[in-house]
Amino acid sequence: MTLSVGVIGLGVMGAEHLRLLREESTGVRVAAICDADTERARLLAQDSVVLDDPMALISSDNVDAIVIASPDATHADLALACVSAGKPALCEKPLATSAAEALRVVDAEVAIGRRLLQGGYMRRFDPAYVEMKQVADSGRIGATVILHNVHRNAAAPEWFTGPMSVTNSFVHEIDISRWLLGSELVSAIVHAAPGGDPLLITMETDRGEIVSTEVFMNAHYGYHVHAQLVGRAGTVQMAQPSLTLTNGNRHHGHGYPENWVPRFRDAYRLQMNDWVRSVVSGQPVGASAWDGYVATAVAEQVVTALQTATKTKLFLGARPELYA
Amino acid sequence: MTLSVGVIGLGVMGAEHLRLLREESTGVRVAAICDADTERARLLAQDSVVLDDPMALISSDNVDAIVIASPDATHADLALACVSAGKPALCEKPLATSAAEALRVVDAEVAIGRRLLQGGYMRRFDPAYVEMKQVADSGRIGATVILHNVHRNAAAPEWFTGPMSVTNSFVHEIDISRWLLGSELVSAIVHAAPGGDPLLITMETDRGEIVSTEVFMNAHYGYHVHAQLVGRAGTVQMAQPSLTLTNGNRHHGHGYPENWVPRFRDAYRLQMNDWVRSVVSGQPVGASAWDGYVATAVAEQVVTALQTATKTKLFLGARPELYA
Amino acid sequence: MTLSVGVIGLGVMGAEHLRLLREESTGVRVAAICDADTERARLLAQDSVVLDDPMALISSDNVDAIVIASPDATHADLALACVSAGKPALCEKPLATSAAEALRVVDAEVAIGRRLLQGGYMRRFDPAYVEMKQVADSGRIGATVILHNVHRNAAAPEWFTGPMSVTNSFVHEIDISRWLLGSELVSAIVHAAPGGDPLLITMETDRGEIVSTEVFMNAHYGYHVHAQLVGRAGTVQMAQPSLTLTNGNRHHGHGYPENWVPRFRDAYRLQMNDWVRSVVSGQPVGASAWDGYVATAVAEQVVTALQTATKTKLFLGARPELYA
Amino acid sequence: MTLSVGVIGLGVMGAEHLRLLREESTGVRVAAICDADTERARLLAQDSVVLDDPMALISSDNVDAIVIASPDATHADLALACVSAGKPALCEKPLATSAAEALRVVDAEVAIGRRLLQGGYMRRFDPAYVEMKQVADSGRIGATVILHNVHRNAAAPEWFTGPMSVTNSFVHEIDISRWLLGSELVSAIVHAAPGGDPLLITMETDRGEIVSTEVFMNAHYGYHVHAQLVGRAGTVQMAQPSLTLTNGNRHHGHGYPENWVPRFRDAYRLQMNDWVRSVVSGQPVGASAWDGYVATAVAEQVVTALQTATKTKLFLGARPELYA
Repeated sequence: MTLSVGVIGLGVMGAEHLRLLREESTGVRVAAICDADTERARLLAQDSVVLDDPMALISSDNVDAIVIASPDATHADLALACVSAGKPALCEKPLATSAAEALRVVDAEVAIGRRLLQGGYMRRFDPAYVEMKQVADSGRIGATVILHNVHRNAAAPEWFTGPMSVTNSFVHEIDISRWLLGSELVSAIVHAAPGGDPLLITMETDRGEIVSTEVFMNAHYGYHVHAQLVGRAGTVQMAQPSLTLTNGNRHHGHGYPENWVPRFRDAYRLQMNDWVRSVVSGQPVGASAWDGYVATAVAEQVVTALQTATKTKLFLGARPELYA
Repeated sequence: MTLSVGVIGLGVMGAEHLRLLREESTGVRVAAICDADTERARLLAQDSVVLDDPMALISSDNVDAIVIASPDATHADLALACVSAGKPALCEKPLATSAAEALRVVDAEVAIGRRLLQGGYMRRFDPAYVEMKQVADSGRIGATVILHNVHRNAAAPEWFTGPMSVTNSFVHEIDISRWLLGSELVSAIVHAAPGGDPLLITMETDRGEIVSTEVFMNAHYGYHVHAQLVGRAGTVQMAQPSLTLTNGNRHHGHGYPENWVPRFRDAYRLQMNDWVRSVVSGQPVGASAWDGYVATAVAEQVVTALQTATKTKLFLGARPELYA
Repeated sequence: MTLSVGVIGLGVMGAEHLRLLREESTGVRVAAICDADTERARLLAQDSVVLDDPMALISSDNVDAIVIASPDATHADLALACVSAGKPALCEKPLATSAAEALRVVDAEVAIGRRLLQGGYMRRFDPAYVEMKQVADSGRIGATVILHNVHRNAAAPEWFTGPMSVTNSFVHEIDISRWLLGSELVSAIVHAAPGGDPLLITMETDRGEIVSTEVFMNAHYGYHVHAQLVGRAGTVQMAQPSLTLTNGNRHHGHGYPENWVPRFRDAYRLQMNDWVRSVVSGQPVGASAWDGYVATAVAEQVVTALQTATKTKLFLGARPELYA
Repeated sequence: MTLSVGVIGLGVMGAEHLRLLREESTGVRVAAICDADTERARLLAQDSVVLDDPMALISSDNVDAIVIASPDATHADLALACVSAGKPALCEKPLATSAAEALRVVDAEVAIGRRLLQGGYMRRFDPAYVEMKQVADSGRIGATVILHNVHRNAAAPEWFTGPMSVTNSFVHEIDISRWLLGSELVSAIVHAAPGGDPLLITMETDRGEIVSTEVFMNAHYGYHVHAQLVGRAGTVQMAQPSLTLTNGNRHHGHGYPENWVPRFRDAYRLQMNDWVRSVVSGQPVGASAWDGYVATAVAEQVVTALQTATKTKLFLGARPELYA
């Protein structure tokens, strides 16, 4: 059986998802695509139908499941439409642009009593993070007590201000920290360097673990994501992200990727493959709608904590049974 | 268009190729499978036809291309049958069990004037080797002068004697060295440690490069493949093969895989995907029949060099135009 | 000219200082030694005079300079006696057991208008820290914005409670952070894992830098000190602390030292040699009495911050001109 | 007791030895110095007597022991004079410029039945090599089977030809290989890259171990010495030679030293300190006159092997009892 997928949004991420579906996935075909820029959609059409209206794509009988990669502001409504149509969707992060909106999506899933949505938190499929989690879950490092995260971008546009580094970049750290630790975040305090970049965000979990994250939008030297998980019996961390090492010009070492695309290429591929399999099997994987809500809700409250510069309690409400 | 593939031989490697075709490849289906153990074939059948006779599989109208993963001694005849049938094949290494036999396969391809065979030297698709070659080809390390290879297995069965470490393991080093350097091997001398394991094999190329390879069948500590390419302006080498590092029990570091399957998992996957694409496009990739012949011919002569313990000239004959 | 030194206190650190003076230092002799346990002093005497009274040692005409390595509670009074006698002293950390007491020592130096005391913050002489500071001072990493410190002990005795990890271990991080950054600490907040170990202490400097320090008394896997300095153009960090790497038992890596003695062996040696030279030249090096006061004062206030779990302003008073 | 040392030769190495004796050694004073350039000697005199005649220095009653750092061609005669005078000497490598000459020095020591000479093979005191030997001697890596050495200089002057890379640079590898393995070299074959640089030299020991050494005089990227010792249960190798790692300009890694002086600074210091102690105690350490002879003799025969490009048996004669 071949799964028929529709892709909404064909920007950088959407085009990459399209490529992954066509060239690096098994058991799937792209039945329909859709973009606000119809010309762009036509250029990428190949043997997929081009539709003008994303809602038409979602309701099309030729589409079994949907990839949502349109602008952030449209995610929640499209996700709600997928839930209404009873069709599974992989929705790029964020699930919604506010916690309130994200909660509406959660409520919709809860109302029908089925998990249909997967959030595009691709790090959960990154082989290095997966290996870290395996080591932690194996008990080899004992009970976890501290998670050190580092998130550095080479450079951000000028309009990319402090709050955006939280809602756009740090949101990944929120999701991956919760996933690695298997616990919930309960407080946050933000320290900001002069000019608001970098930030050092310290959070606590309901098990008393401490999550420390450096978010540096203009780290200059390259795109670099690192994590070390500290347990009572040992630690596990990412190795330097390079397959080769060079000697040259009095120097030993390796280069960094320019951004997240090369760094997380495998993660995006594995996420897509696992999503396709999970749709076919009916067994959800990856970040749920609830996880998407929590990421957005925590980010929202961390923005407040950034403004007050004090330790802030985080409020999430009760997790519905559906996501137990 | 979906390529219809037949798989001959369903042992460890054949079963893995079958899995890759079914679960990790795009644009391909497994039309037919075949194994000397018909019961085993039936267990793995799924929606593929099970055939008793590999020659019937090769000539079947429902099979566009073939994966040969049967016992080594059968490779050459099956490869010849594929050439006769005018069908592309991915043939597990070695192409043949003797240089003379391998040359017959080369001659068959030359006779029809088309390259149909790809040898299963999967290291050419390993991301670390690919990155090493990109660095070398970019000119960053200058003209290459030395290649240091290390090939260590955790343990070999007792019957795995010195000559087998050459024909079975070192054969990979022959192929990858020629591919990395883009030059041809012209001499070899073998130094053997007491008991014949490890070996240190030193070869020269027609450009004067020196290729030094440690082959250690019982290195005890794990499966470990390493290479460093030395140029007149710098060097490039593999990083340690691990995505994560741990601290525990007074120790920092990482583990090694047990054998080549986990180490080269990505290489096998990428090889299969590239082979499928190359069959569809008609543009050959990977090791050619000539490369397969050279690997076998050099290995044969290195076995002689091992026995004489002297520096030995290597004879390969002229490379046909087809492989220019 | 040979400097005549007297050593007060011959416990673990005192005996090591004695050994360094006798075996690994140039231009110095140990004229006199003194310990509460006279028998122990006699056993270590060699050609040094054994004195019962540390005050007699300080005032002895045969002693040009003093090493104070007696119990912590005695440091301040002995340091004051050295200042009164106008003799230079290397005083093991802490300078005093309270900020108030340390300030009395500072006041005494200020009163005579001469710097005679050096605090035993040996990390300032550790080759790795020195290299980090050289890189930072060279401008290669740009303006510093974050310093990540990690201080892990394999295990601490049960009576070694949370506050002691601050006053005894974290005090080193206070000193080295100020030295690396060349700025002053202005705030602190402490996050404690369940049971009070590990702590994550976040401080800010008067230049807006953020200093994040993990202090883990029972990290189990070994003694491990690490630091990474983040600047606007790059970062510099310690390499893993090992000269060799091993492969064995499916594992690659290296061991950790049991405690600070092997880790900082070179630092203690270089500190002693530089102190001897500085006494002869009259040019002070290392941590001053003011630095010793600040370390103790900050530690005292971090203990309070630990108890309140809120962000706390640090008060140090004005730095006297003598330490400009 | 303070040892009175005389230093002959005040070039780069001699001046460094002088500095080490004066500033980084204990229990020693420099009584006399001597250089062909008397003016240079006078400039470095401080409180040492300047002598014109090295033989006068050796025989001076004010000199207990000698450091020989004059031009290579003078080493053997000066060493012989020290033996005649019954005075210990640390003689820079090489002990002599030919095996025959070196053997005369050995014979002289044997004649008096006392080991007075130590060769300046400082790598035996390098902390990384020492740690490798400790790991090997501990049995952790099992019986040793292969030693991989890499010796790379950034650049050599044009007159530094192939044979000189053997007699001047490779000679260090000969000594350290024998010391690490504790076995004797019995054969050698040399592979040379175009232009005679780099060389790959493969030697065998009387225990069947294989010693593979790359000697690259113009490796361009920096001065880099590396070694990996392979045993039947594991391996031990040098870590990358850097205390810190930096991120900057899309790059992670560290720099290399320009030459052997910074790389082996600690080794030179520790060698000098251990030599002073060994003179006082009468217990020889480091490379003996016999070791110096072997290094020179093997180098001489490797030059021949380089010219013949064939596997060559090495002849050393019987080792006198004195060096058992």
